[in-house]
Amino acid sequence: MAELIRVSATSRSTAVAGAIAGVMREQRYAEVQAIGASAVNQAIKAIAIARGYLEQDNIDLAVVPAFTEVEIDGNERTALRIAVFPRPDSLIHINGNGNGNLA
Amino acid sequence: MAELIRVSATSRSTAVAGAIAGVMREQRYAEVQAIGASAVNQAIKAIAIARGYLEQDNIDLAVVPAFTEVEIDGNERTALRIAVFPRPDSLIHINGNGNGNLA
Repeated sequence: MAELIRVSATSRSTAVAGAIAGVMREQRYAEVQAIGASAVNQAIKAIAIARGYLEQDNIDLAVVPAFTEVEIDGNERTALRIAVFPRPDSLIHINGNGNGNLA
Repeated sequence: MAELIRVSATSRSTAVAGAIAGVMREQRYAEVQAIGASAVNQAIKAIAIARGYLEQDNIDLAVVPAFTEVEIDGNERTALRIAVFPRPDSLIHINGNGNGNLA
């Protein structure tokens, strides 16, 4: 069972980033779940921040977002579930700077 | 030079998804840029939707988010730049269903 990191609109992105970095160091896989625009924004910012935290561990991150249905207080909600992987060396764009940005 | 797909808070996620799918089919690489929580949310939703659009092309997606500074109307803003790659076969979690969700 993968660790599920739940992110809310009030989550601090640096705290979430620390959680992601910790799970990735130990398990090399994490899942992040967010419901609503603010939570999704916090989650993505946290992943970008976690990439920095993990530089010293020589781990970079790549993520795969998917929709999933969750039940909250008896109501069905659509959540964004983001699978977090170590970024493979093959995932480099030749015209980029290797950091996900244009050179 | 990679194609840069700019996403705003008012962008329709399905339209952005169509743009991402088109660029991925042709160039096998895209970059998506979003500024602000609503735009980031639209961008991530669009990537999740584009994964569905590209199923028939046997292309899945993996993304790498990073911060970048951009100048808008003379003001420096922090944008989220998301590099979009074809998902390599190696990027599968053994305890997941391969779709970025838990089984």
